[in-house]
Amino acid sequence: VLPRFYAPEADPAAASVRLPDDEAAHLTRVLRLTAGARVRVFDGRGHEWLASVIDATRAAVRVELLETAVAAPESRVTLALALAWLKGDKMDDVVRDAVMLGVTRIVPLLTKYTEARPAAAASRGRRAERWHRVAVASAKQCGRAVVPRVEEPVRFVDYLDGATGALRVMFVEPSAGVGAAVDVQTLPRADAVEVCTGPEGGWSPDETAAAARAGCTLVTLRAGTLRADAVPLVALTAVRALWDDL
Amino acid sequence: VLPRFYAPEADPAAASVRLPDDEAAHLTRVLRLTAGARVRVFDGRGHEWLASVIDATRAAVRVELLETAVAAPESRVTLALALAWLKGDKMDDVVRDAVMLGVTRIVPLLTKYTEARPAAAASRGRRAERWHRVAVASAKQCGRAVVPRVEEPVRFVDYLDGATGALRVMFVEPSAGVGAAVDVQTLPRADAVEVCTGPEGGWSPDETAAAARAGCTLVTLRAGTLRADAVPLVALTAVRALWDDL
Repeated sequence: VLPRFYAPEADPAAASVRLPDDEAAHLTRVLRLTAGARVRVFDGRGHEWLASVIDATRAAVRVELLETAVAAPESRVTLALALAWLKGDKMDDVVRDAVMLGVTRIVPLLTKYTEARPAAAASRGRRAERWHRVAVASAKQCGRAVVPRVEEPVRFVDYLDGATGALRVMFVEPSAGVGAAVDVQTLPRADAVEVCTGPEGGWSPDETAAAARAGCTLVTLRAGTLRADAVPLVALTAVRALWDDL
Repeated sequence: VLPRFYAPEADPAAASVRLPDDEAAHLTRVLRLTAGARVRVFDGRGHEWLASVIDATRAAVRVELLETAVAAPESRVTLALALAWLKGDKMDDVVRDAVMLGVTRIVPLLTKYTEARPAAAASRGRRAERWHRVAVASAKQCGRAVVPRVEEPVRFVDYLDGATGALRVMFVEPSAGVGAAVDVQTLPRADAVEVCTGPEGGWSPDETAAAARAGCTLVTLRAGTLRADAVPLVALTAVRALWDDL
């Protein structure tokens, strides 16, 4: 199995592509590869190539694209995850797992009971950059040639306003007593779905009501109360399994 | 919502029950409850009661069982997880998640490529005790009155020898090139299922062959390569979702 590198600037029309600094460091310092080594590169938008290292110096790594290669298959359903921003390093784990489970877009949500609430926009930007790196690392590991976009955190109400046409499925606690919530098994199939999951403290009643008004389908899991950071993985798995896509 | 405590010695025929030391410490030192407080207790075998604290001293906590109460519903399918022993704290996370997803039995497996390989039986015993505590904590959190049994680690070949009559489903990597593996969606329904998941280094060819000979159903996930510690959660979720039990 050839090592894989993320080369967002890869262009089959160009003679070669330079790897980003992180990737170059991985190639030279961790894997100790040199000119002539065979590798795979992917552009994060679904394209993958067999490639050969041309130059591997401290300053830069350039590779030549030799031929197209087949990456891990993408989900047949366009999957997005909109999740309440979780505390500490939990977001890193969820981003990594969501990439493995095939999402193409991740939207961190600021909700009423979100416990992680960064004060400054600067801090948010650093977080988004970090999550992007986690997404790249996960795509490298799981064989996908698509690096999902991790968006800037948005308020849940603003997320609801920005409808995309996808089926929006909001996972709510059984104990929330939301009358309109259905079993996940009853979800209609869709070509595109956005899975919405709440924070450690749960959704507020206002939020579930607003989501229902905005056309979200509310779902409860009969399996009971799950940790907030386990719900995204369970929700994405359930949707893919039920839609014959796992 | 009343706080819940694990009282394995609870007996409706007795006037009161003493809580284990861990639980007593949680009641007195963390929650600072005193005599007269209303709580819930469960025996780990599916029974739950409304109860009242009789005595709460440093030495012991006793509660009186007042009436039976309804715990979170158990899975309709009897679920077990047999998983290759994972490195570091990953087992704790998997035990916690598996309890939330409704397993009644967890079997740590020693496999050919298991990286965590404790030398001494004493260390194994401490681990099993630790996992039991994790299982209790998870049951308390998710509302189950059943505390799954975490068994002593066994060699995979010995696990295969000890057939239980349950459908055994072994999750294998797509890249393992195991000819006989099917999609998870094709699994026949069963009343009892044991989900088997491999270590970081994957199953050995001998192990998949032995499992197939022993009657295990081999399954691959089209979603691609997942982290070893994510597979149990994904596998249990997929089975419950597909069998209309999530």
